[in-house]
Amino acid sequence: MKTFQHYLDIINQAIAAIPYPERPHQLYEPISYHMALGGKRVRPVLVMMACDAMGGNFLEALDAAVGLEMFHNFTLLHDDVMDNADVRRGKPTVHRRWNDNTAILSGDTMLTIATQYIARTMSWPVMELFNKTAIEIYEGQQWDMDYEHRNDVTVAEYINMIRLKTSVLLGCALKMGALIADADDSQADLLYDAGVNMGLAFQLRDDVLDVWGDPKTFGKEIGGDIMNNKKTFLLINAMQLAQGDDADELRHWLNDNYASRDDKVAGVTAMYERLGVRELAEEAIARYNDMAVAAFNQLKMNEDDKTAFVALANKLSGRTY
Amino acid sequence: MKTFQHYLDIINQAIAAIPYPERPHQLYEPISYHMALGGKRVRPVLVMMACDAMGGNFLEALDAAVGLEMFHNFTLLHDDVMDNADVRRGKPTVHRRWNDNTAILSGDTMLTIATQYIARTMSWPVMELFNKTAIEIYEGQQWDMDYEHRNDVTVAEYINMIRLKTSVLLGCALKMGALIADADDSQADLLYDAGVNMGLAFQLRDDVLDVWGDPKTFGKEIGGDIMNNKKTFLLINAMQLAQGDDADELRHWLNDNYASRDDKVAGVTAMYERLGVRELAEEAIARYNDMAVAAFNQLKMNEDDKTAFVALANKLSGRTY
Repeated sequence: MKTFQHYLDIINQAIAAIPYPERPHQLYEPISYHMALGGKRVRPVLVMMACDAMGGNFLEALDAAVGLEMFHNFTLLHDDVMDNADVRRGKPTVHRRWNDNTAILSGDTMLTIATQYIARTMSWPVMELFNKTAIEIYEGQQWDMDYEHRNDVTVAEYINMIRLKTSVLLGCALKMGALIADADDSQADLLYDAGVNMGLAFQLRDDVLDVWGDPKTFGKEIGGDIMNNKKTFLLINAMQLAQGDDADELRHWLNDNYASRDDKVAGVTAMYERLGVRELAEEAIARYNDMAVAAFNQLKMNEDDKTAFVALANKLSGRTY
Repeated sequence: MKTFQHYLDIINQAIAAIPYPERPHQLYEPISYHMALGGKRVRPVLVMMACDAMGGNFLEALDAAVGLEMFHNFTLLHDDVMDNADVRRGKPTVHRRWNDNTAILSGDTMLTIATQYIARTMSWPVMELFNKTAIEIYEGQQWDMDYEHRNDVTVAEYINMIRLKTSVLLGCALKMGALIADADDSQADLLYDAGVNMGLAFQLRDDVLDVWGDPKTFGKEIGGDIMNNKKTFLLINAMQLAQGDDADELRHWLNDNYASRDDKVAGVTAMYERLGVRELAEEAIARYNDMAVAAFNQLKMNEDDKTAFVALANKLSGRTY
């Protein structure tokens, strides 16, 4: 297997070379703007890694990889409209730089372009996996929006939501690479499980970093979830664990619209530490990461490839940061 | 070939039987609400008619037909957000009854469900045609939005816009039926041309009915395009033809935000009649309808089938209303 960077370079080159039509300018410029914002490109790299590790020609997985990254960026474009987000990767979001209608229509176009790239694989199982995963991601986004208005979300509901919204796409990426390599179903399914567990650990790490991350490397402002009362793994556990004075204080932070950012972030962070929810999150991350690693270790592939996947899982779950 | 109603009943039954998941309710309820609003279902009927006329088993075209109708309804859902429309087929639009976010996300879901139905044909040419047509429709919608801000739109630009936004989907429907029936490329392409010309006549008839239609049968309020200064075939021609006092009066109607609805609709309608743009529209409709009829007549199919297609083209172009 090649290095992450090797696949990444090929993918970035392919993304930069996507031949968008010149006109209508207002439709295609936002797409190329958004695709040029960069990002880790984890999903397309996973497609190529899995294809390579399963004995396929990873260049045959390039279209699927680009399609999956285009799809991921479509979901970000529409999510940014729905969340009314101003900034994405340090630049104005498409709906801020242009407008909501542009973000809606350019997003729709990205979904169909993504489908065109996926269709180039000429594999119905790949197409089926892609469509099924897309539906799950919309469901996850819907649950996420539903949970904003509920105060009784359980940890199980939250885990199911992030599984749909974030994790299945990592599972899909790995399985897609395996399908393109004509791997056995058992191998493709193991890779899918590995990807989903890796995705759960990755998203829970994101919850943790939003509170305790290094502002220099996190990429977003620390405390964003706290300010938005976002029902993360941390808040849901805290709401269940807080008793007496703690419960009163937590209710106060959730309802006080006039608290300063510094006060609220510091207050809620201190409570999370007092209640031990950071440890609960670390335990959950370790558990999901262990499951991902176990799945990778069960796969029939050479030891170097296993080591590379395990290293990536560890990195995404944040152990090496 | 069966009657329009025969195919329609099968399609309506299939649409009513789509097995939406129960949850998340907020995602799927708007989809089933919108799909139940009805509509003429012209596109899915065209898929089945073309498949039947080309010697295929029209029931094998049912999935593609349902997929295409789902796709059409997705575009309506997102267009209603972009146009800020309140009413669709006499009922509140999805974004009014729920909200913009629901309309965006449920619409995305409909696009992927549509793709799943299209994929069931297991035909890559069908999938390719579908994706290409979808991209053209987004481009047409973008041109339509661009033209709102321009006063120098030409008739050729307008025709190209409605070709993309409306007509190619009718061409796609007919060609899709032919592909499913394994018809020759020459036959599939003739059906595509027939559909596109039929679609142009259909959309131009819509422009005319917005001004001179019967309020009881048109389904929308008369004069909507006039009140919105929509750059229709009529307005674009009027802007080019109006001279002297007419030009001053037309400028007045376009810029007077305080004119009463009755005054503005009556004033602009009188000007259209004075300038002869209604006749120009009728000539254009007849020309496109004739091209559609000529294409149908060139096809290798039995005479009854040709007659049925020609009757439908005449009906859609409004000659028999």
